[in-house]
Order: sequence, then structure tokens, then C-alpha cells
Amino acid sequence: MNRLFYQPNQAGMSKVEAAERTLREINPDVIFEIYNYNITTMDNFQHFMDRISHGGITDGKPVDLVLSCVDNFEARMTINTACNELGQSWIESGVSENAVSGHIQFIVPGDTSCFACAPPLVVATHTDEKTLKREGVCAASLPTTMAIVAGFLIQNTLKYLLKFGNVTYYLGYNALKDFFPMMAMKPNPECDDCNCRKQQEEFKKREALKPKPVVVEEVDTAPLHDENPFEIEIVSETTEEELKQAEGEKPQLTEGVTVAYTKPAKSATNDTSATVGDVSGQSLDELMKHMQSL
Amino acid sequence: MNRLFYQPNQAGMSKVEAAERTLREINPDVIFEIYNYNITTMDNFQHFMDRISHGGITDGKPVDLVLSCVDNFEARMTINTACNELGQSWIESGVSENAVSGHIQFIVPGDTSCFACAPPLVVATHTDEKTLKREGVCAASLPTTMAIVAGFLIQNTLKYLLKFGNVTYYLGYNALKDFFPMMAMKPNPECDDCNCRKQQEEFKKREALKPKPVVVEEVDTAPLHDENPFEIEIVSETTEEELKQAEGEKPQLTEGVTVAYTKPAKSATNDTSATVGDVSGQSLDELMKHMQSL
Repeated sequence: MNRLFYQPNQAGMSKVEAAERTLREINPDVIFEIYNYNITTMDNFQHFMDRISHGGITDGKPVDLVLSCVDNFEARMTINTACNELGQSWIESGVSENAVSGHIQFIVPGDTSCFACAPPLVVATHTDEKTLKREGVCAASLPTTMAIVAGFLIQNTLKYLLKFGNVTYYLGYNALKDFFPMMAMKPNPECDDCNCRKQQEEFKKREALKPKPVVVEEVDTAPLHDENPFEIEIVSETTEEELKQAEGEKPQLTEGVTVAYTKPAKSATNDTSATVGDVSGQSLDELMKHMQSL
Repeated sequence: MNRLFYQPNQAGMSKVEAAERTLREINPDVIFEIYNYNITTMDNFQHFMDRISHGGITDGKPVDLVLSCVDNFEARMTINTACNELGQSWIESGVSENAVSGHIQFIVPGDTSCFACAPPLVVATHTDEKTLKREGVCAASLPTTMAIVAGFLIQNTLKYLLKFGNVTYYLGYNALKDFFPMMAMKPNPECDDCNCRKQQEEFKKREALKPKPVVVEEVDTAPLHDENPFEIEIVSETTEEELKQAEGEKPQLTEGVTVAYTKPAKSATNDTSATVGDVSGQSLDELMKHMQSL
């Protein structure tokens, strides 16, 4: 959570105060609870644990998800410690010091690698630092990188809470090349955090108790209407042929990209197949007989 | 530019008024110029062309870049027509109707495919629409997808204007899978837009006039200080060996991701090389002589 969050009229406020003020203006229906403290001290840590365990919307229940937007290692390790102890899922996020790379990491205690299982992961930018650092310029304040990483953080939060799409376990972002590494990591059985190891054991027990997936043989179901006198077929509106006939050179498309629509070629094609034109001048009855006889 | 841009106190304002109000609050030093009109009508199109040609920061000069954030085909084609005629670089952006995919496309008239060269590109989501549409929910208002696409748009704008990193020609975003297709497309020599074809000819002429890249033989330059009595060498702080000795299982990392640091293994290694301890108790003079004699 960068200082660029501040608006000019919020000078003097703490980050959490300014953030709450801005967010409340955007959506007055959200309930906010703010604490301006260092979570790494013992008293605050206990309070932080308590709010994770009992700060959910339904009174006394745990929260659904913890999002980490802190800027140092100790604070991340503190969130990790709390979430491992409580078995609380969380998403870690971060931006590199030179602000040209960032990442999000979805951590489910016992199921995925926690923050203490391995040294923290960073996205390599393969860039000479000198090309980024300039006199009088603080590169670490590139707000676009933070906006994009925050976007990934919240998009994956929505996917997790509203149950659509796939929540990504680790998503990196290299701003210089628009490169997005992704992966999932299993927890380290020798993790330093005893609560991580405990959560791993409990995860294994839960997995063992789950019913084995039943293999269902696919039955070849008969069509709903087995008579089809008019030989009606469902066909795609856009055929491979139409795509080929699309005007101009066929664009070289990368994997996963397609054209929104196609245009027919200008020149007439040598299509000799029957068209409605062939039976024009006939009555509807004659037309139906013709179609049935085809 | 989605209606979610609005803040509650901006009800009744036009989109451009609300946008200007919000942006001015964020940064009062920016000069805004707003026009609430339909660019596809003849009069407005002429005015739009005039502002692209003469609306730059330096009076009377063209703007540096046009960013397109419109929601329909006709408006995009109109921006395309204007930019082809003026030879103006622009970045097109868009989000799909179901709001789970989006893209940006950097268009340099004559050099890259324009918006009329080929049917517009979209990112395939491979998703059943039914899983996204729910009773009473307007899926097209997922603000995270728009925030991420806007982030890509502005990050690439900064890369272009401030000359760092690589500006991406086409970057897609599939929110459900966090999939990011990328590509570059050459213009269509048979593009419907005569100004696109004209820009292609002019681009070819400019390219032909450019001096051929001269192949310079790399000269093996001698070190700045060729005497090195203390045999000082610059070595990486983290060696391959240290990486291997990192505590715990070596994480399975995807391409482009690395660990932020490594921890030495707990068990002592059988390192028999000389350390500073070998020469302790000696004076600084003796120590220097010892080092020179090594």
C-alpha cells in the first residue's frame, strides 16, 4: 500500500485513515474496521489474531480471507505465522523495490507452500538497474505496477469468494516485458513454522477422509427426437470456411486469441452447392417436399 | 470507461465530467480538456481530429498518444480513421461483454495492423456463459477486469512516453485463468482504409531511408587498472552453491521466477578453504603482506 494512495486533501492522515476515507467515499455501504499499528509487536499480534478469528461479517466468526499488502519481510512473516496458527487462507502481494515487477501468492495453510516454506519468490526482470534509476526520480513509486498487482489481488479474491474461474496460486508480473509467470507450490515438510507442519498433517488427514472420485462410465444417450425428417442440424454460425474467407490476409493469431467476427471475401467463390435460389418460384408445399427428398 | 467510475456524489454528471472531477482531485496539476460528444458525427469528428492534431502540451502541436476507452465498434473505427489519416499512434483497449476478458492493442499507423486491417481480436475464455450469468447480476460490471486492463493501458503508455521497457503490441487478459496472450501483427496491404495503405507506403519509404545497422566488431577492452596486487575480484553475493545449500527442498520454480534470497543449510559444510581466521593476530602490515603473497 503505497503512499500514492493519498489524495492531496488527506495530507497528515495515517495510511489506514486515508484509505478508509477514500474507500468509504467510493462505497458507503462497506463496513470498515481500521487499526493503525505494527502487527509484529506481541500485544498487537494478539489483537490481530483475534480480529482474524472473530472479525467476520457474522459476529464472532473468522474472516473469509486475509489480504496482505505490506512492504517488509517481518510483517509478511507475522501474517504467515498468524494464518498458519489459525488455518486461515490468505493472499500475499508485493511489488519489487524498483517497481517494475510484482506478484500475488495465494496461501492455504497445509495445502500450499507458506511464506516460511521457501525463501520469498520474486519475478526476474533481467534489466540493468541503471536504466531504471534516474537523478531525482523515485522509481519505486510507479503506481501502475501497484494498480495492476492490486487488480490481480482483488480479481483472485472475487474468484475465491464468489466461486468462479480458477484462483491462481502464484502469479508474477514483469512490467518491462509484460511477462506473467504462474505456478503452484506444495508446502515444505521441513518448514520452520511448526503450525505449517501441523496444518500439513491435518490437510493430509482431511484429504484421506474425502470420498474417492467415482469413475462414471459415459452413457451414449439417444437423441431426444430420433426422427428428423427435415434433416435439421445445429451448426456453428461461423464455419472454418468462413474464417478462411475472411477478408484480407488471415491474421497470425497467438494462442487464446480469436477474431470477434469474420467478413466474407469480396470475390465470389466457386460454390456449386444447392442454395435456396435453386428452388425459388416453388410453393411452400413444393419446397417442403423438395427438402424432404434431398 | 465503465459507469462504475462514478462516485455517489457524482450522480447526474456525464461520464467525462465525473472522470475529470475525480482525476483533478487526485492530481490538481494536470490540465484537462473535456468534450461530452459523439465522435462519430461529422462535425464532432472534425473537432476530434483538430484536437488530436493541435491539442498537445506545446501549443499547436499534435498530442503524443491517443488512448481509446470506448465501448462500441463504431467509436473504435472512428478513432482508427482519424489516427490513420493523421499518422497518430494510439492504444486501443476493451473488456468483453461478460467482463472476464480484455485486451490492449498498440497501433502505429503503417507499422502495425490497424483496427480495420483485420476483424477485432478478442481473448477466448473457453467458458460456458451460463456459469457467469446469474439472476439479477450484471456480470459486465466486474470493475477488477477494467482496473487491470486500464493498468496495462497506462503502464504501456508510461513505457512508450518515458522510453523504458518494451511496449506490447497486443496484450490479452483472460481473468478466469490468469492467461495473457501476446503478439504483434503487421498491417494488411489490402486494408479497407486508404489512409492505412498510404501510411504503410510511407512507413516503407522511411524504413528504406534509415541507415543500415553497422556491425561493430567488439573490441576486447583492457581493464581500467591492469595491476591488481590484492587479487580483488567482483563476485556475485549469491553463488550457485549457496542456492543449492538453501534450506529445505529446492522449490520448483516456473520460468522467470527466482528466490529473493537464500538461507545457508543448517549442517556445517566441509569447507577447507582459507578464511580470515587463518591470519588472525597479525598486524595490518603483516596481513597486507600475507594477502599479497597468497
